[in-house]
Amino acid sequence: MQTYAAPLRDMRFALTELHDVAALTALPAFSDLDADAIATILEAAGKLATEVLLPLNAPGDAHGCTLENGVVRTPPGFRAAYAAFRAGGWNAVTGDPAYGGQGLPQTVGMLVSEMICAANLSFSLYPGLTAGATIAIDRFASDALRALYLPKLTQGIWAGTMCLTEAHCGTDLGLLRTRAVPAGDGSYRLTGSKIFVSAGEHDLTENIVHMVLARLPGAPPGIKGVSLFLVPKYLPGTDSGPDGGVGARNGVTCTALEHKMGIKGSATCQLSFDDAQGWLVGAPHKGMHGMFTMMNSERLGVGIQGLGLIEAAYQSAVRYARDRLQGRALPGPRRPDLPADPIIVHPDVRRMLMTMRVHAEGCRALGVWVANRLDAAEHAADARARRDAEDFVALMTPVVKAMFTDFAVESANLAMQVHGGHGYIRDHGIEQYARDARITQIYEGTNGIQALDLVGRKLPAHAGRSLRGLFHPIADFIENIRADPDMEKFAAGLERAFGTLQLATRHIATRGLADPEEAGAAAGDYLRLTGLVALAYLWARAARIAIARHGAAGPDQTFYAAKRISAEFFFDRILPDATACYLKIRSGKASMMAMPETAF
Amino acid sequence: MQTYAAPLRDMRFALTELHDVAALTALPAFSDLDADAIATILEAAGKLATEVLLPLNAPGDAHGCTLENGVVRTPPGFRAAYAAFRAGGWNAVTGDPAYGGQGLPQTVGMLVSEMICAANLSFSLYPGLTAGATIAIDRFASDALRALYLPKLTQGIWAGTMCLTEAHCGTDLGLLRTRAVPAGDGSYRLTGSKIFVSAGEHDLTENIVHMVLARLPGAPPGIKGVSLFLVPKYLPGTDSGPDGGVGARNGVTCTALEHKMGIKGSATCQLSFDDAQGWLVGAPHKGMHGMFTMMNSERLGVGIQGLGLIEAAYQSAVRYARDRLQGRALPGPRRPDLPADPIIVHPDVRRMLMTMRVHAEGCRALGVWVANRLDAAEHAADARARRDAEDFVALMTPVVKAMFTDFAVESANLAMQVHGGHGYIRDHGIEQYARDARITQIYEGTNGIQALDLVGRKLPAHAGRSLRGLFHPIADFIENIRADPDMEKFAAGLERAFGTLQLATRHIATRGLADPEEAGAAAGDYLRLTGLVALAYLWARAARIAIARHGAAGPDQTFYAAKRISAEFFFDRILPDATACYLKIRSGKASMMAMPETAF
Repeated sequence: MQTYAAPLRDMRFALTELHDVAALTALPAFSDLDADAIATILEAAGKLATEVLLPLNAPGDAHGCTLENGVVRTPPGFRAAYAAFRAGGWNAVTGDPAYGGQGLPQTVGMLVSEMICAANLSFSLYPGLTAGATIAIDRFASDALRALYLPKLTQGIWAGTMCLTEAHCGTDLGLLRTRAVPAGDGSYRLTGSKIFVSAGEHDLTENIVHMVLARLPGAPPGIKGVSLFLVPKYLPGTDSGPDGGVGARNGVTCTALEHKMGIKGSATCQLSFDDAQGWLVGAPHKGMHGMFTMMNSERLGVGIQGLGLIEAAYQSAVRYARDRLQGRALPGPRRPDLPADPIIVHPDVRRMLMTMRVHAEGCRALGVWVANRLDAAEHAADARARRDAEDFVALMTPVVKAMFTDFAVESANLAMQVHGGHGYIRDHGIEQYARDARITQIYEGTNGIQALDLVGRKLPAHAGRSLRGLFHPIADFIENIRADPDMEKFAAGLERAFGTLQLATRHIATRGLADPEEAGAAAGDYLRLTGLVALAYLWARAARIAIARHGAAGPDQTFYAAKRISAEFFFDRILPDATACYLKIRSGKASMMAMPETAF
Repeated sequence: MQTYAAPLRDMRFALTELHDVAALTALPAFSDLDADAIATILEAAGKLATEVLLPLNAPGDAHGCTLENGVVRTPPGFRAAYAAFRAGGWNAVTGDPAYGGQGLPQTVGMLVSEMICAANLSFSLYPGLTAGATIAIDRFASDALRALYLPKLTQGIWAGTMCLTEAHCGTDLGLLRTRAVPAGDGSYRLTGSKIFVSAGEHDLTENIVHMVLARLPGAPPGIKGVSLFLVPKYLPGTDSGPDGGVGARNGVTCTALEHKMGIKGSATCQLSFDDAQGWLVGAPHKGMHGMFTMMNSERLGVGIQGLGLIEAAYQSAVRYARDRLQGRALPGPRRPDLPADPIIVHPDVRRMLMTMRVHAEGCRALGVWVANRLDAAEHAADARARRDAEDFVALMTPVVKAMFTDFAVESANLAMQVHGGHGYIRDHGIEQYARDARITQIYEGTNGIQALDLVGRKLPAHAGRSLRGLFHPIADFIENIRADPDMEKFAAGLERAFGTLQLATRHIATRGLADPEEAGAAAGDYLRLTGLVALAYLWARAARIAIARHGAAGPDQTFYAAKRISAEFFFDRILPDATACYLKIRSGKASMMAMPETAF
């Protein structure tokens, strides 16, 4: 059974104990916010997730989306849920108040997203893609386009998409063929086909605003000839009525729905643009700027999808492990009153549950850190503070995207494994998590692309300046705890792992500069190593807080004791992988690249 | 696209170069066999796999099995394929010649199985389950039952099943409730329900012979009160006609088909036994002996399923990586004549392909080793040689089952990742591998149960005698290559990994004896460590052969060069995980077991 209740206590820990919520609410943009107000918002989002979205998750998977005569219908219940979602203002959490948004911090938006994705990943993609389109329009479009579209998108009256991939090109967008020709009135006419368009067509909103990459006549070849266009499903009409005021139908149609392994409640569309009217967003041939602006936002979002799935998988597995009676505890019956002990007594079941648990709590801690820095990047008063925060977000975006989604797939599979044969049967809803999670390693840039982004773009940028935002706090913290006898295990483990990260960074800086294939060969393990060290730092800090709060009473006592045990489990059972990552990096590219293509 | 051609060259390498085919064919049972004859058989099996079974794999997944009025139909084409399979004698490869079997070595049977599973895992389960039933009947049933059933089962005229799990118990069969009461005529009447019965009902054979665990009246509680029964779908009639001579319908019916994540071409049934006539197999209350006999054979078989899937995933990914054009090689265009380079030029794609490749070749090498020992255990002239071989097979069975299937799931997911978004779309057939592979970690005892079997049963058996069969050849080989400058890298890596395995063994022997939860907490990582060390040993031996054959000409030159590169990749990129396993084992049970149940 799919089970989910918002992990509000751990969210509060990450927000207010591990990280500095006062620094967040001290930003001028958030001056009327405090920790209690945030807690109230999160509680409401949790209620929505559990009560409205979770019940639609398994049925949405079973029913899927349908396409008939160009009309896409989302699974039963999605329309009503979207209406409630929009009425509750959940589209607009972080949106600009100038357009009807609530103007809340990205940090709050991230935790709200975590809950929505945990409850129903397919549903989350409809508002999720809108957010990306909104950002690109806000940053790059003309004032007229902004005034026309941003209120509708911000409030979720209309939805948005990203139309990037074509059948012959995904990662390499320079190969795309969709063409845009000037219409003479300042607009353009687009013709071509796009695939893998999430929420490309659906029945949740009257209008859908497509952000489309296409080539202008005479555009240079490759990605330097790609421009970004806004192409609405319906041309805007007179602004009235619940549909937001749509006019004539534009020349964009859904020609097919993809049949996918998972996220079946999400309409993944093939779209055909036939002389569709569109407007340029940003400068001609500079479409990749807009694309990357959407993409970076989406990449963090996909990482948070992973976090949500980890938590959902964990909770479902815990419930089953408590209920399912099989065998006896190895040292002897724990529940002699029952025909068998619940399987939660077995070490291997514990291993799986604890792994999911520390993935969830660790990724949440790291996610809040990055989101806090994203808020600082947008709102800090000081330019240098903004720049440093931006560097950190840029550095950690591929780590969040790739590591969180790797952990999500691992966790979903562990939850299945806890369920045994029942996990493999569709009726129990657990295998859905594994199928849904699997896309997160692929879309918005495969995890291999994330690793290349980290070592090829983020590391060398500004002569390695970005790393400081990660390395300095870790180095300082190690100094801080070195003398603390309670922290001995954590200090030693963190220092060792941090040491391998420094060595690995040097390896890439020296060998990767001379030979980019050396950097490429190290990339995946370097990303994981970076992520593990960041997690180790956060777990060590969490342990220190838990140790300090050791005397707490009531539910807090349980919480801090559990937090400390979880921190120890991370150091015992997860962090050793950092050593393996380092050994693999050090081995270099030779055996990875030596095989002649014909010998495979 | 699903792609598969039998890897005959690497099979020949494993059979005749890495292992000692002469020792195999010197066994009296196989005196009329030689390497060439085996090669001919494997070639024919490969042809069957590619031409008959592979084309049914994706359609079988899409169509699935159907149940109507108690009648189960397999996907279109399965009946004809099964008829061809049986006519070709493929059911009977390792079967007893006394019953119409071909009496070929288990080693040959294993490689044939690899190919069948690679081409169509769902199909493979129909003959696969029959094999387990045949073994149990052969070993434990009365002469009359053996005479009646073994010819039919051996030749695949009838099929077999194992009916173990009930809704409330899977791993813990002591809880089962199906009852058998004596009918007064030497037979019994069985009543109860079984779930997860692979091939429990289908249209490939007229009759199906169920091996059913049930309780006799007054049976002791738990697994010591479980007996094994033979319950045919049709009672045997007069032995004639193509159906093998079936009589009256027995009281066993399929009440439902499970809807599963994958292996949809395999009918996984809920069976209801209603006063069904059955015959005791083995002594009363000793059903677990028969069950484990079937199960151990099935566990090796499931490992080989994993091997087949690794190879299929690998080949499909290689094909796509050669064809798909995206981006340019990091040092500069490799194919300037094309709009982009094939993705096989990218280090991360290489990493994925090489990982799958070394999983396939390494597991094949280990699988042939174990199968060779299984043949020796059955046929060696000397009792001590048989015992030693049996020890080795017992020790390595959980390793083969769990590690091969873990690698299969990893490889299937890597193949999807190589395909990017296209891997997630059902039409391309790649995500099917990931869904199909996932069951192999669960059925016939979850991989967690395999690990417990290794540390709880196999390690301590006969005061640790079983380990010798693994440790001695490794220690001898390290001594052998220590002075060889060409083997320096392999000797050093193997020695280091072997050292950690010895330390880990001591850890379990000392701490696990005093506290079984310590053994349980170490079990999963210990199994993987054992497997990695066995693979490292085989890869080092493969490297030595490849180095010695360095001067070979023609296709052999490519083969040995590739083998050496693969061996280096294993030592560079896979073996470092052994270090992480050891560090995890050493951390002990504390943080894994400390969390109070209520704190999860």
